[in-house]
Amino acid sequence: MTTTATSAVSSETAADLGLRLTLSASTPDSAVTPNAEFRRWFTAQRRAKRYEVRRIPFSELAGWHFQDGTGDLVHHSGRFFSVEGLHVRTSWNGRESSWTQPIINQPEIGILGIVVKEFDGVLHCLMQAKMEPGNLDTVQLSPTVQATRSNYTGVHGGSAVRYIEHFVPPRRGGRVLFDSLQSEQGAWFLRKRNRNVVVEAVGEVPGHEDFVWLTLGQLYGLLHEDNVLNMDARTVLAQIPLPAGGGRPLHSPREVLSRLTEVKARRELVQRSIPLAEVSHWRRTDDEIAHEEGLHFRLIAAEIRAANREVTHWSQPLLAPAEQGLAAFLVRRVAGVPHLLAHARSEAGVLDVAELAPTVQCQPGHARSLPPGSRPRYLDLVLDTPPERVLFDSVQSEEGGRFHYATNRYLLVEAGDDFPLDVPEEFLWVAEKQLGELLQHGNYVNIEARTLVAALRATRTARGGPVR
Amino acid sequence: MTTTATSAVSSETAADLGLRLTLSASTPDSAVTPNAEFRRWFTAQRRAKRYEVRRIPFSELAGWHFQDGTGDLVHHSGRFFSVEGLHVRTSWNGRESSWTQPIINQPEIGILGIVVKEFDGVLHCLMQAKMEPGNLDTVQLSPTVQATRSNYTGVHGGSAVRYIEHFVPPRRGGRVLFDSLQSEQGAWFLRKRNRNVVVEAVGEVPGHEDFVWLTLGQLYGLLHEDNVLNMDARTVLAQIPLPAGGGRPLHSPREVLSRLTEVKARRELVQRSIPLAEVSHWRRTDDEIAHEEGLHFRLIAAEIRAANREVTHWSQPLLAPAEQGLAAFLVRRVAGVPHLLAHARSEAGVLDVAELAPTVQCQPGHARSLPPGSRPRYLDLVLDTPPERVLFDSVQSEEGGRFHYATNRYLLVEAGDDFPLDVPEEFLWVAEKQLGELLQHGNYVNIEARTLVAALRATRTARGGPVR
Repeated sequence: MTTTATSAVSSETAADLGLRLTLSASTPDSAVTPNAEFRRWFTAQRRAKRYEVRRIPFSELAGWHFQDGTGDLVHHSGRFFSVEGLHVRTSWNGRESSWTQPIINQPEIGILGIVVKEFDGVLHCLMQAKMEPGNLDTVQLSPTVQATRSNYTGVHGGSAVRYIEHFVPPRRGGRVLFDSLQSEQGAWFLRKRNRNVVVEAVGEVPGHEDFVWLTLGQLYGLLHEDNVLNMDARTVLAQIPLPAGGGRPLHSPREVLSRLTEVKARRELVQRSIPLAEVSHWRRTDDEIAHEEGLHFRLIAAEIRAANREVTHWSQPLLAPAEQGLAAFLVRRVAGVPHLLAHARSEAGVLDVAELAPTVQCQPGHARSLPPGSRPRYLDLVLDTPPERVLFDSVQSEEGGRFHYATNRYLLVEAGDDFPLDVPEEFLWVAEKQLGELLQHGNYVNIEARTLVAALRATRTARGGPVR
Repeated sequence: MTTTATSAVSSETAADLGLRLTLSASTPDSAVTPNAEFRRWFTAQRRAKRYEVRRIPFSELAGWHFQDGTGDLVHHSGRFFSVEGLHVRTSWNGRESSWTQPIINQPEIGILGIVVKEFDGVLHCLMQAKMEPGNLDTVQLSPTVQATRSNYTGVHGGSAVRYIEHFVPPRRGGRVLFDSLQSEQGAWFLRKRNRNVVVEAVGEVPGHEDFVWLTLGQLYGLLHEDNVLNMDARTVLAQIPLPAGGGRPLHSPREVLSRLTEVKARRELVQRSIPLAEVSHWRRTDDEIAHEEGLHFRLIAAEIRAANREVTHWSQPLLAPAEQGLAAFLVRRVAGVPHLLAHARSEAGVLDVAELAPTVQCQPGHARSLPPGSRPRYLDLVLDTPPERVLFDSVQSEEGGRFHYATNRYLLVEAGDDFPLDVPEEFLWVAEKQLGELLQHGNYVNIEARTLVAALRATRTARGGPVR
């Protein structure tokens, strides 16, 4: 198979595309799917589509078993994902630590893809009302396509994935606007990435009752609401840059890369896969694998029945966090340019030592129970911020296909002009625009930070108000 | 510890730096270290510094042993590196394959750093005459600093690494010009990366008899010679961009990223660490671990004695390739802009599924013994190229600290204007300039391709001739 050497995408400059994205972001309502109509449709979807999710013992999981010898929880096909053990040793400035934990290993790279198309000169995104077993309210708004390789190549025997033809060859002639592999939760997944891709369709795109066309402005508006845009929608949305205004960032792009490289080089992170049976301080019972102090998360088994998914009845393991998480960025304008205080964070399953993460990312109940010196830096500052300094505050769900009722509170907090620009070396003030540029590449910005990058854009185009 | 928020690097634009790099590249000789003086010095270094490298049985390795149970070859400190097993399963367009092999696991990220400084207005690089046990001619030219973390933190009890203060905090006030983690041989190393960093020194830099200052033009000149610039020198050199002239690349940057992302997403690559004892088709004897058909490489043990290394007597395992490798790019001008035909290649130990590699990269003796349909694509074309189309042809050594007499023949071959721009989907025409931009990030361009990127620049500034 050969590919054509040139394509239409070459003919548009980044600036032209930026203008089109800005226009879509500044369009908080649309004749294509008016907000009121969206609301009726979405409410109807949530009413009509329900999963029955029932906890079962591991022994009743169909197609899954604990592997002899290792105790890993695996699918009989050898595909999908497995739950294994991981040994992590890390050191930073002479402080060493090591631990073992269960982790989800899903080496398959899936597609999270949004089809975009202009209507009346304004770009719209084709979004799906998608059921996921672990979702709060079952139905959330997802990208046009959200599919593992097993999904879209039919390994699990389900029906074809709608609109997949825009993302796999032979393509339907669309042009790729953004396309990169992006990481998912490093605390729960071993080196997991998905393809985040945005394709502008050419020609007619047939509609479907489970899908709607929304502008970027409408999506940003929905991001202010709890648990509407699913994780996959948020991560693809974050990849669509929005021109952030001029002004010079505090650090040059070269400095930003160098700071992150320095942390990666100096921080030791040695990951070693081990049998799940050899993980310490975790206990397996008939129906869960849990930390002996109830920390972090549990792995459970669930049986799921539904009417309109690709496969209508199945069972699978799910990861259930111990509590709601917190992901917060401190935000400060430097010479008028908004900057976020990023943390070069190393999570257990990270691909490349460290990624830029929110200033604070933790399970706050547990974190606050620690002695002050052991708490995540800036945690108290973030949680004690007066309301007038809170720029963004909503609760969002993480991937409902793997996690059960996993939510994070996402916060953007104004740090104030007196907040120091000199910060500990594993932290870095990065301009919003710079994060957008890094997001054209993979493994720079972690998934929690990506939701907050989209949130910062949403604060500028909020709820039909003027662009800030 | 806190870092200052701004630094001098912000005050120079990329264009200004580009001019300074071009000037250095256009300076094929220098009053600081005239070529004739360099030649005398380098010859004297090679005469004076010799290693005695003696093959020994594994049982005589000091500090190394085969681990009970796994059979992995490990150091008693748990540091440095180990030789383990790897199971790889891959599929591409429906063709599946899987194999097991020994692989070197070295999770430590080392520093490959060049100190640069202007003399008489021209940037010079501080290069070291470095002994490595596996080197042809023992001494080759290395970066200013070439050190594993174990080296520079003193784990192996050696002497301090000279000039390391330019690369670790508290820094000596220099400014970082380029800084990224770059991969090493994916066929032999499991997810290995080193920090490739260039620092411009401020103030006096004391000299040392083992070090010389050379311009980029002098280094490019030396790259035409066999086995002078060691692998680490070449990879850092490749990271220093050289403005490549105007003209529009065949593919936009966005298309290049998307093509590579598509291959990464669609190609399955599942890597699983296994005990070395479970690797099939490889045999361990008293003094080597070798493939049963003599293919690929052998692992041997060596005792090394020398006078001027950090530790003067030690033993270690080394990897000895079965034959000299071949790494070749097809080069074609498109609308006057030089493009290289990159292959999105997945090697066993690659970090992120695939990296851009030379058009052809193989062990050519073995590859030519295969039936025509199984040979690497473009192999015959490259090897049968008439001499007048060969732009660059030299033999270079790979890392002499891990590999024994490992060399590759590096070729740049003019493809001709009739060579198709439409190529199979795992190949991609990339402009030299685009490769330079990707090299500011890690894990895009593999180490063999990086030597050839430097080589292409060297063809423009060759041997004192005018810039082409």
